[in-house]
Order: sequence, then structure tokens, then C-alpha cells
Amino acid sequence: MIVALLGTLACEQEERLRRKVREPMTFVPLRDDAATTRLSDGLASARAIVTMRYDRSMPPAPSLGLLQVGGTGYDDIDLGYLPPGAVVCNAFGHEIPIAEYAILAMLQWCTRFMEAERSFRVEGSWRLGGRTAAPYQDELTGKTVGILGYGRIGRELARRARGMGTTVLACTRTPRPTSEVDRMTGPEGLDELLAGSDFVVICCALNAATKGLLDGARLGRMKRTGVLINVSRGPIVDEDALFEALRAGTIGGAVIDAWYRYPSRDDLTTRPSRHPFHQLGNVYMTPHSSAWTLGMIERRWAAIAGNLDRFRRGEVLENVVHRVPS
Amino acid sequence: MIVALLGTLACEQEERLRRKVREPMTFVPLRDDAATTRLSDGLASARAIVTMRYDRSMPPAPSLGLLQVGGTGYDDIDLGYLPPGAVVCNAFGHEIPIAEYAILAMLQWCTRFMEAERSFRVEGSWRLGGRTAAPYQDELTGKTVGILGYGRIGRELARRARGMGTTVLACTRTPRPTSEVDRMTGPEGLDELLAGSDFVVICCALNAATKGLLDGARLGRMKRTGVLINVSRGPIVDEDALFEALRAGTIGGAVIDAWYRYPSRDDLTTRPSRHPFHQLGNVYMTPHSSAWTLGMIERRWAAIAGNLDRFRRGEVLENVVHRVPS
Repeated sequence: MIVALLGTLACEQEERLRRKVREPMTFVPLRDDAATTRLSDGLASARAIVTMRYDRSMPPAPSLGLLQVGGTGYDDIDLGYLPPGAVVCNAFGHEIPIAEYAILAMLQWCTRFMEAERSFRVEGSWRLGGRTAAPYQDELTGKTVGILGYGRIGRELARRARGMGTTVLACTRTPRPTSEVDRMTGPEGLDELLAGSDFVVICCALNAATKGLLDGARLGRMKRTGVLINVSRGPIVDEDALFEALRAGTIGGAVIDAWYRYPSRDDLTTRPSRHPFHQLGNVYMTPHSSAWTLGMIERRWAAIAGNLDRFRRGEVLENVVHRVPS
Repeated sequence: MIVALLGTLACEQEERLRRKVREPMTFVPLRDDAATTRLSDGLASARAIVTMRYDRSMPPAPSLGLLQVGGTGYDDIDLGYLPPGAVVCNAFGHEIPIAEYAILAMLQWCTRFMEAERSFRVEGSWRLGGRTAAPYQDELTGKTVGILGYGRIGRELARRARGMGTTVLACTRTPRPTSEVDRMTGPEGLDELLAGSDFVVICCALNAATKGLLDGARLGRMKRTGVLINVSRGPIVDEDALFEALRAGTIGGAVIDAWYRYPSRDDLTTRPSRHPFHQLGNVYMTPHSSAWTLGMIERRWAAIAGNLDRFRRGEVLENVVHRVPS
């Protein structure tokens, strides 16, 4: 069985994947800079592809049975380009680090640890200290956290946020009775969640229903002190409206890990938006790094190896998100 | 009743205190730069003093009935200098922000959020991103947190640390059965706690029994990857031994908020130790800022006002830590 590792990110896990699979299979690494003929040949013979991206800019894969996404979001997979009978699966393992990132982001917002650390270590000044009449910090305890999208990340975040002494609201397509949060609603509860939350954490998938979900009007429902945390996908929040809300101070701030533009491997200086978010004083921003832990990689690629083994053995696959009719 | 507010830190809370007390009393603010005669007169007439520091370098307070510490640690109060019958009380309200600080410190240690944020925002580089083969981060979930001293801070920290998915060990003078931590021991369990913890958080008071408690030998019990977090008092950890352990890498690192030297109000550039901790790459350091939230101030000065009212009415005081025999 030929398994194409399409894209440098997947190729970098080849050794890890080899160690984890049990069935015989041949891996064909196709890096971002692979020659066109190598790419065409590799995809032509592949029964399975592991990738973050596959679309009409790439050669066809007529033998494809399993497209295993190397992550969770499959918004960069052109489902209409896949051959009949192909199955698309995604992968997880990132819910723990992303939940931890959101907690850190909220604590950092409240306390400004970074600024105190830098001022003390680099400048050598006690001016942000507690015995020198510095401005008071805030506390996370007692705040309300609104979770938009209650999947794996939402659940891990809810557990931790409650442990931190916050009230947790959640809004999801499929509300169900649960004691994991203080209040769960369907999409009709979104405006109320936005209005009642000190922190709004975007944990839903990007799809037709969520693209631009937080537009100017929705951002306008948030508290003026409310902070938006995006650990999912940039385009769920309207790019122009978010910048304007932050610039004008109609919301308190944002911590952004998911962006509108991504770099190529050979130019890591691509700015992540057409707007200069980096010039705003009420924004913390990270380079899509919230999930990037060794634990995530180990869990995720163990799951991917498991699915490749299952596919090789003809068994039922896990985390199926799409089936192309035969 | 004359209440001396001794020291600028106490004086800055005069208005807040006025709003909170119910009984009639007269506040005499004695700032750090108060003239000697004003200081002598104020202390001579004071029935109560609210302060962080009182020792033989200051005039006597022969009428003193209540010395109300403006914080928790009373290691800067010379108990032997107080007149017969005086009672010393301390104050809390800082346990929530300090527990939050410790959680943030652990998350920051694992994920290096600060470095990714700065590199992305200031340098404009994706090099620490998750799609660009950056070094993997670590996760807090699954780690072991050892809490040294299980008082109010320890308890708030334990609750949050468990919510974050860690195993929690505690070592205290007075171990008792509790489900709040995974294992609680007396002082005899200290070495085992040090050896078993990924993070050791110092939450005990500074006194004769804890001064220098973590010396070179004790630091040597820690894991080579272990991280020491000090949110209590610097001298609980031997200054030279800590610097040497960090410099030599025999422990993984430290997050330090409690120091060996403190600044005067007119020179905020005092370095916090005789050693250059700020030059070490495995140290995060903050200017005794872990408790400095508005919530702490409100809770603490409400408690102080309550004690002043009780003292004025001749009622039983709260948080008594010392009584000078009559």
C-alpha cells in the first residue's frame, strides 16, 4: 500500500509514523518543494494520502481510498476533487494544549505577567511591583468564559476554566444536558453568550455556517471590556470588523492564534492579516502555535497510524468526516 | 482612637480604609518620608498601627494595642519591640491571585507563550509557529505539582492545579486527611516531594524553621528538569545555592516573585539579589507582583477595617498571629 505524505509538515512525521504503524505500507514523502513529476507519480499511485491540504492546484489521485488529514480542520481539502469512494478522516490530540493556551491567555490578560517579567528582568525596574504602588492587576477567578463550539477543545477548556473559578457558558449546534458547563445553548443563544462573557473563546470548526460568524454586529454584542480568543480559524471572525473593533476599543482586546494569512516555508515573515494587528496595544498574537506540543504530536500521529493500519486491514475507520459516494 | 498608617504602602489605602470602617477613629498617615517628629508623635499616640514593617529603627509605640499587618508575612515586624499586651494580626486576600500566578507560571514554562508572542508581534516571524516545524512545546497536563506549605495559598493552588490535570503533592507542618490533594505529608516527606515534582511551589511562611529550608542539598533532591516557583519569601531558598543550581543547570529553572533585596521608594532599580538572576536563561522573574490585584486589595482592606472596628469595640480579633504578654 502506497501512502503519500503530502506537504512538508506530514513528511516531517515520516519516522514517527513508521515507528507507529504495524501493517506493511510504503511511505512516499512529497515535500512542498517536490518536483512536479514526483508529485504526479506519487499521487497517482497513492491508496492513502496524509496531508493538511489537497486541492485542484495539485495532480489527481485516482487510486485514493483514504485521505487522512494531518490535523483537525479540513477546510483546505477540496472535497469535490476527491475520486469516488474516497473517505476523509481528521485527527485530534490538540485539545489539551489548546485548552491550556486559552487559560494562559486569560491569565496573562488579567495579570500582565509578561510585561512585569520583562520590565523587571530586562529594564531592572520594580515599577510594576506590588510594593511600589503599581497599577492593580485583575483576576480570572469570578470571570465568565463563553465557549463558542463545544467539541473536544471546548470540553477540555470548560473543565480547566471551572477549575480556575470561572463561570462557563457554551454555545453549540447540538446542545445537550451536561453538568460540565454552567449554561449550554444552541446557536440562538450566541448573542446572549457574547453579551455575558468576559472572555469569548472560539473553539468551533470553520465551515460554511461559521465563516464570518462573528461579524461587526456580533462583535458589537460583546462587553466593551470583553476579550476575544481565537484558537480555531481566523475567518470565523470577520477580519475587517475585528481590526476595527480592536482599533476603536469597542471590545477590550483579543488573543489571536488563528489567522487570515499563512506563510510559505521559505518566507516566514508574511504578516498574518492585511491589517496591522501587531501595532495594537490590546492584542496578544501568536503564530498558530497553541497546539504545538510534543504530546499533541504523539497523540495525533498515533491516531493517524491507527487509521492507516485500519484502512490497510479493511476495518472501520475512526474520525470519518466525509465520504465521497462510490 | 488613633490609628497610625505606617509606611507609604499603608498610607495609600487611607481612603479605602475610611470607606470601610464603621467605628469612629482617626487615621494618621506616616509615609516613608515622614519627618522624625511627626513619626515620633504619631507612634506615641497610636492605639493601633497598620504597617508592613515595624522595628527598632523606628520610634516606640507605648500605647499600642493592635499591630495590624497590612499583609500576610510579618517577618519584618520585630515582635520583641512591641509593648506589653499588644496583639499582632495579619491579613490575607492574596491567595487567589498568587494561585493564579503559579498556574500561569507553569503554563508559561511549558509553552513559552511569551517568546512566541514577542517573536511573532515584534519580529514579525512565524518561526515559533505550529506549521513551520518549530521546537515542540510541553504540556502542563499530566505533570506533578509539589506544594510546600499548605495554607490558604496552597489550598487555592491545589484546586486550580488539579483542574489543570496535574497530580498534586503537598508538604505541611500539620498534615491532615484531605481529598484536596493527591498526597499530603509532614516535613519528613519534603525530600520525596522535591524528587517527585515537576514544579515545586513555595507557599509557606518565612520563619525560623523555614529560613534557608531549601539549601543546596535540598535543591539537589529536585529533578534536573524541576522548576522552582517562589511566591512566598526569598530567604526560604538559599540565595547562593539557588543561583548556583540555576547557573549549573542542576535544576530546570525557576519562576521567582519573592526576593532577597527590595527597593526603596526612590530607587526602583535595586537588583533583587546579589546574584545576576536576570542574566540566566532559565529564570522568569517578577517584582513581587503576584498578589497585586484590585480583588486582593479590596478583600484585604475589608478584613483590616473589620479588625480595626473589632478592636475599637473590644471584640475578639481575627487572624491573631502573636500576643505580647501583659
